[in-house]
Amino acid sequence: MSGAKTSALMSDDEATPAEFDLPEGYIALDWRRGFGRAIGPLYRRAAGAAITLGFRVEEHQTNGMANAHGGMLMTFADMAWGHVVSIETSSYWVTVRLTCDFLSSAHLGDWVEGGGQLVSTSDDLFVVRGRVWCGDNTLVTGVGVFKPIAPRDPRPGEKLFKT
Amino acid sequence: MSGAKTSALMSDDEATPAEFDLPEGYIALDWRRGFGRAIGPLYRRAAGAAITLGFRVEEHQTNGMANAHGGMLMTFADMAWGHVVSIETSSYWVTVRLTCDFLSSAHLGDWVEGGGQLVSTSDDLFVVRGRVWCGDNTLVTGVGVFKPIAPRDPRPGEKLFKT
Repeated sequence: MSGAKTSALMSDDEATPAEFDLPEGYIALDWRRGFGRAIGPLYRRAAGAAITLGFRVEEHQTNGMANAHGGMLMTFADMAWGHVVSIETSSYWVTVRLTCDFLSSAHLGDWVEGGGQLVSTSDDLFVVRGRVWCGDNTLVTGVGVFKPIAPRDPRPGEKLFKT
Repeated sequence: MSGAKTSALMSDDEATPAEFDLPEGYIALDWRRGFGRAIGPLYRRAAGAAITLGFRVEEHQTNGMANAHGGMLMTFADMAWGHVVSIETSSYWVTVRLTCDFLSSAHLGDWVEGGGQLVSTSDDLFVVRGRVWCGDNTLVTGVGVFKPIAPRDPRPGEKLFKT
């Protein structure tokens, strides 16, 4: 089953928003400034406990071979894996270390997803084993170490959020 | 001594190009498409054998704290460290693995530089120990593993370039 037709939510025409079938359950992350806007749009899906981010490879995210740029995949991995810290703690967080192993490529137009599994919270360092994939194809595996730096108001979808 | 006044070379108004004193010896990398354009402008300096890339932190490269975004720093590290492969081999290359340790932050307006040292070329894998810094402040250290995938025509500044 395909999701609803959508167009990317951007606050200007920086990226030409293409209409496409957004996979079911995904909603746009509405980042209106900074690097998040420049490299977006990104999308988020919460299916039970498993939360994944996604994006469709657009021209402004590609390298010279029209594949998703390594920098884009690392940025996406950082966001998709570190997102666990937001869910668990409703904190602002920083990345302490990120290791990415690049296994294969995603092409212009491909739908890419990423998520991670929390493997340790010792010493208030959140260690996440993560993956970025496109269909059955793993693009990146790796480990992120993230550190919460300041609590903020819980947002919908986070464990501390009270309905 | 300060460098020449410059304005960022962009093919549209995506990022508002700010005039600033470019450190001596740096020239703009003229990337007109894809991720390189979206996250730029970046600059390059060749001082003898040492080649460094640089960028001035602009709004579209920042996180919510007005610091250079971790994804931006990783993207920049990938480019600045992997650049060694271009210099040595005049090849297109891919990133196999990148590990970044984040030590401190660069703020909006800061001038950030990066470069790396080639430590191995065994098995045609180029291993680079790299650093990203802002003045005397180290922002990121890490290791990149890069693989040349296809030779191309040598460009000025590369070892195979014939004048």
